Amino acid sequence: MGERDIAAILVTTEPEVRYFTGFHTPFWQSPTRPWFTVVPAAGKPVAIIPSIGRASMAETWIDDIRTWSSPRPDDDGVTLLVDCLRELAAGGRIGMPMGPETHVRMPLRDLDRMRAEVGGFTDVTDIVSGLRMVKSELEIDKHRFICGVVSDAFDEIPNLLSTGMTERQAFAAFRAEIIRQGADDVPYLVGATGPGGIEDIIRQPTDREIVDGDMLIFDTGSTYDGYFSDFDRNFAFTSAAQAARDAYRAVWEATEAGIAAARPGATTTDVFTAMNEVLKAAGSLGHDVGRMGHGLGMQITEWPSHSASDDTPLVEQMVLTVEPGLLWEPGKAMVHEENIVVRAGGAELLSRRAAPDLPII
Amino acid sequence: MGERDIAAILVTTEPEVRYFTGFHTPFWQSPTRPWFTVVPAAGKPVAIIPSIGRASMAETWIDDIRTWSSPRPDDDGVTLLVDCLRELAAGGRIGMPMGPETHVRMPLRDLDRMRAEVGGFTDVTDIVSGLRMVKSELEIDKHRFICGVVSDAFDEIPNLLSTGMTERQAFAAFRAEIIRQGADDVPYLVGATGPGGIEDIIRQPTDREIVDGDMLIFDTGSTYDGYFSDFDRNFAFTSAAQAARDAYRAVWEATEAGIAAARPGATTTDVFTAMNEVLKAAGSLGHDVGRMGHGLGMQITEWPSHSASDDTPLVEQMVLTVEPGLLWEPGKAMVHEENIVVRAGGAELLSRRAAPDLPII
Repeated sequence: MGERDIAAILVTTEPEVRYFTGFHTPFWQSPTRPWFTVVPAAGKPVAIIPSIGRASMAETWIDDIRTWSSPRPDDDGVTLLVDCLRELAAGGRIGMPMGPETHVRMPLRDLDRMRAEVGGFTDVTDIVSGLRMVKSELEIDKHRFICGVVSDAFDEIPNLLSTGMTERQAFAAFRAEIIRQGADDVPYLVGATGPGGIEDIIRQPTDREIVDGDMLIFDTGSTYDGYFSDFDRNFAFTSAAQAARDAYRAVWEATEAGIAAARPGATTTDVFTAMNEVLKAAGSLGHDVGRMGHGLGMQITEWPSHSASDDTPLVEQMVLTVEPGLLWEPGKAMVHEENIVVRAGGAELLSRRAAPDLPII
Repeated sequence: MGERDIAAILVTTEPEVRYFTGFHTPFWQSPTRPWFTVVPAAGKPVAIIPSIGRASMAETWIDDIRTWSSPRPDDDGVTLLVDCLRELAAGGRIGMPMGPETHVRMPLRDLDRMRAEVGGFTDVTDIVSGLRMVKSELEIDKHRFICGVVSDAFDEIPNLLSTGMTERQAFAAFRAEIIRQGADDVPYLVGATGPGGIEDIIRQPTDREIVDGDMLIFDTGSTYDGYFSDFDRNFAFTSAAQAARDAYRAVWEATEAGIAAARPGATTTDVFTAMNEVLKAAGSLGHDVGRMGHGLGMQITEWPSHSASDDTPLVEQMVLTVEPGLLWEPGKAMVHEENIVVRAGGAELLSRRAAPDLPII
């Protein structure tokens, strides 16, 4: 902030407020109340929050907690926030994340009013993402724990699922197993089943019954103490075509290449390219999701992206997903995913590596 | 829209996009990609979304799906969106929810660029909230189902929990039970334990062990097919002081008053006042959370609020929570909550009514 001449930074979203304060609650799912934190260039952050959050915020390291009785639609914290920004910035420049992967969580009407009162804001997405992309060892420990829990739960899949179950029952069984193994929550669980392969892998369960010859993908972001895992696994029921087995193996090999490429000094684009070469050699028909993995942390996806143009330099203690995907037949996609932390000597796996051959249940 | 002379409405958040399109995925937890829907005054909505969502969106009633390969930070859908707004609005006024309980989910940098290109927007929070506040019978059926599931899970609490468990174990046991009973997910679970009472009821679990004399509150928003329940229950372990039992009974009576007041023709403020009178008579020390219940739907909280100033007229088929709370001793809060749907003859309960006396485990 000193280098950029930023006097104070305003953050409004759950992960940023949690990152700077330690305030952790699922209460953010309610859209009713805005929550603000102002980070001055020197001294502790100041929390400007609805009074319902005072008791929880008081247990964090924050001393200066300013509250109002929210909801109060005609002034839902705006006056308090404007006063705080004027006080802490003292005429200096005020930053706010305004770039990729950010948004401002307050009514646009109130945002416009605030901007009219305190003047322009400077984009500080780079400052916030630069901090959050590199994890502490305490953060990495939480990632390692939840990745271990989900690895254990995936190992139970052959005992949990069978033909005749519906997708909805399969999702419920897997979700309960992840909780049983020690996750705090399973905020993200997508997947699908399909005869011989799957087109759309980000689906919610239906009442479709699993039958012989189906393929199944589960992709879950589970959490422990507010930190995510994010990886998937693929299975077939009873049998699978050779083309499906080949596609599985190709994406497994692409994952190997991505993991090997993830070293300090390389970039996210190097990791992308390493995976992409393997997929091209395997005859991919393309799989247009814009990237092949991303940062992982307090959100299921964070900066940076393994893409053709992202080119973020990798440094030690970045926690990343490696996530190649290919379209191996029209309408049939195969995506693998592992979680790693970048270390001096190369990637440390956080998830337990998927089997090299397609598991048949 | 015709009455207000609005040519098109832009929505950017998960519940609004889902409401107008049917597109339902937890993928929105990833902050990386923006998703847009434009609702014209005549004709079907148009989806402007990342290509990763095309297959899922193609299964909804939407015909016009415009995609780009996201993430693409230098133009993450903005050009596509601007072109679509110009085409569908054809010089007419463009609406966007800009008021209470809304925000715009796209980078502020991109929002500013879009506004510079297409001109001013009109706030249409009232149009969107007016639609969403009144549920169809199909929506109400989903609410009734998930409220029944959670009622059944709460009934199992005496069999699931005991002294000696940690909060974390208790949360896990209850979460797994809700899934077992048929919920798709438990996105929201807060609660706490405390000797003789609880101050902060929106906490996440700790490794604190439950002991004789503790009180426990669980408050959960669970979902079925994307629709929420939101109600809580209170318990004591082994024994409870008379003051705690009295506080429980007072809030139970306040809930009765709130349910009785929730009739077509009354307002949210009437419901608030009915509950507040009971709490005042019980000697409440206050409980400053700004309201005593709210709308319920695709989000755990939606418009309107039972507050002293909200004054929204109640109409049939509104799904609401009734949620009085009191501070019965300094640092000890008691909150009850039920879910109802407003009917011509009065409220229909969706949750199974809490016991009138504090349950002792």
